[in-house]
Parts: sequence; C-alpha cells; structure tokens
Amino acid sequence: MYNKQCIVTLDLEGVLAPEIWIAVAQKTGIEDLKLTTRDIVDYDELMQGRLQILKRENLKLSDIQNIIGNLGLLKGAKEFLDELRRHTQVIILSDTFLDFAFPIMKALDFPTIFCHRLIVKDDYIQSYELRMKDQKTKTVQSLQALNYKVFAAGDSFNDTGMLLAADKGVFFNAPDSISKQFPNLVSTQSYSELMREFEVFYDSI
Amino acid sequence: MYNKQCIVTLDLEGVLAPEIWIAVAQKTGIEDLKLTTRDIVDYDELMQGRLQILKRENLKLSDIQNIIGNLGLLKGAKEFLDELRRHTQVIILSDTFLDFAFPIMKALDFPTIFCHRLIVKDDYIQSYELRMKDQKTKTVQSLQALNYKVFAAGDSFNDTGMLLAADKGVFFNAPDSISKQFPNLVSTQSYSELMREFEVFYDSI
Repeated sequence: MYNKQCIVTLDLEGVLAPEIWIAVAQKTGIEDLKLTTRDIVDYDELMQGRLQILKRENLKLSDIQNIIGNLGLLKGAKEFLDELRRHTQVIILSDTFLDFAFPIMKALDFPTIFCHRLIVKDDYIQSYELRMKDQKTKTVQSLQALNYKVFAAGDSFNDTGMLLAADKGVFFNAPDSISKQFPNLVSTQSYSELMREFEVFYDSI
Repeated sequence: MYNKQCIVTLDLEGVLAPEIWIAVAQKTGIEDLKLTTRDIVDYDELMQGRLQILKRENLKLSDIQNIIGNLGLLKGAKEFLDELRRHTQVIILSDTFLDFAFPIMKALDFPTIFCHRLIVKDDYIQSYELRMKDQKTKTVQSLQALNYKVFAAGDSFNDTGMLLAADKGVFFNAPDSISKQFPNLVSTQSYSELMREFEVFYDSI
C-alpha cells in the first residue's frame, strides 16, 4: 500500500480517545458536566453552560489537560492509527479544541488534526472559537477537490455530514439510535472491522 | 503554543531530505540522471527521460527505494520537524511520488504528505501520475479557505507558488539564482532561522 491518493479522516473522541467532557465529569464528580448534545441540542448553549460550570468550580485549562493526559487512548487505538499511517494519509477531524487535543495528539505521535480552539487567559478558559461551521464536511469536500479519495470514520451525529460526503463513510461504535437513522452507512464495532472496511475501499480505488 | 489555527506546509526534498534523483544518480553512477528542471525545463520530458533511463539500466522501484531508505534525512531535519509538530499542524507538500516518499516518511514518523504517485507493475515503474497540477499552491489556498493561516517553506521554483500564496512564505537554503528573483520572500539558511521566522509568524496571527 502507500501508493494511492487516499486520505482517511477520523473523528477523535469515541474513535481513538474517550469522550473528553464525560471523562472530566467522572474524574471531577461534577454531574452537570455529563450533559451532551443529546440533552441540550444547541451546541453554543451547551458550551456556554460547560464554561460556566468550569468557572463555578474554579477549574483551569491545565486541570482539564491533566485529566485528559491521564485518560489514555481507547484500547488498540494507537496500534490501529500507526498501522493506518503506514499505509495512507490520515487527518483527524474533530470538534474538540486544540488545547484539549494536545495531550491526546502527543500520545498518538502527533498526527495532523483539524479542530477548534479555546480562548484562554491566565490558564482560565474564557470562551471558545469554532474555526468554521461544519468543518468536517467541508474538509472532506476540500480534499476531494484536491483529487483525493476520502475514507471517513466517526461515531456520532456531528460526523454524519463527513461520512456522507466521503467516498466511503463508516460508523465506528456508534449508538444504534444514530446508526439506524443512516442505514446506507456501514457500522463497525472494532478496529479490525474498521481496517477491513478501509482495505476493501483502498483496493477499490 | 499548539492553540492557533495555523498549518505549516513544507517542501520535502531540499528542506527535510536530500534531492532524490541527484542521490540516485550519485549512488548508481548514472550521469544523465543528474539532469533537473534547470537542464530540461519541460517536467514531463524530464520525467519520461528519467523513466527511460531506469528501464535502460534495469532499475526497479525497490532498487530506488533502497537507495532512498539509506540516504538519511538532512542533518537536524527530524528534530526540527518534531519540534514543529509539537506546536502546530504540519503538512508536507512535495512534487515527489508516494512510492519514493515512503522510506522518508517512515524516518520522519509519518507526518502527513500530499504528493504524486507512480504507476508500477511487477516492481517496474511504468509511468507517473500527477495528482493535480500546481498542487502545492492549490493546497495552500484550500487550507486558507478552511480558515487556516499558512506558513510555508521551500527551496525551489516549484515552491514559489505556494510561498507566495501562503500567509507567510520563506525560502530555506534556496540557491541565490532563485531567491533573488523573489526579493519579497525571506531567505533562511538553517532550521533555527526557519523556526525563528515561524515563531514570529505564529505570534503575529
């Protein structure tokens, strides 16, 4: 392999690393940090709420980074990504923030990641800044316009634009409630299944 | 660092690794493989000539890959790239081929690379396939359309489109004959100079 014009775009949380906010909620015992877009549909409302909780609890960016740094990756994630990077190009497309992603990228030997960022002052998170709306879908379309075939994998609603835009999009450990709404997308439950789907795609292009 | 929406695009040959065709010419002693676009301006004519020479000399892809694998990187290249990847996103933009790039990417711990490809049959190179014309410039423009600030570095004519399109473009060890045609582009001669230019750019965005 390593000869075809192919890029794999991967979601981060749920695909290579644990869900960050849920982990922070568990480690700190702060119950209302467990809310997700399933509970509060409006992302900005959800994020503003999270930032208020961090302020209320006097949690700094470095506190969160310490928690993330100690989380570890999903079991087998590093080996899966290493194998993939030996065969093709990989870009991680995540709606997390560079500031949170850093310890995870370090553990993964610094693959390329496109995501958002926090606005931080004196180690306190002030606000967040989306690089652009629907960046996952738009990045896939940009890569295709650069003559790449794109294979994408993700686990949640915010991945479905990317999965549908990609030449092949595959769910990885997605909840049934999501995957059954997109019956045309293949569902995989393990890295070996995901790798097999990639290999079939790679052979077909 | 690692918090700003910045991507560094780097040329490969002359910036991180030696010039591949020149190295192959030296290792094999085949004089006419030393010709470059400085001697034969038309790239396709140059490449067709190179492929005919490989055929004439019975050189296989694996022979070339072995030579490339033993070349090593430019002195300090790995440390420079490692440092850069700890601070921001990096994509290597090269007009080489994935088949030649593989041993170099392995030595660099698999950064993301966008380049071209060879058409190979039974280990013999049949032809080459450009992914697109002027891919370096177009990739920089695509990244900017995804709301990235782009810092670019390269050493030759085929980099100047990318250097001029980038938010900041910098020559690295470019011959005077090229750099003096582009007096608005900063010239750097070492990784520490290049890193300093990057840091000034990063602070400014």
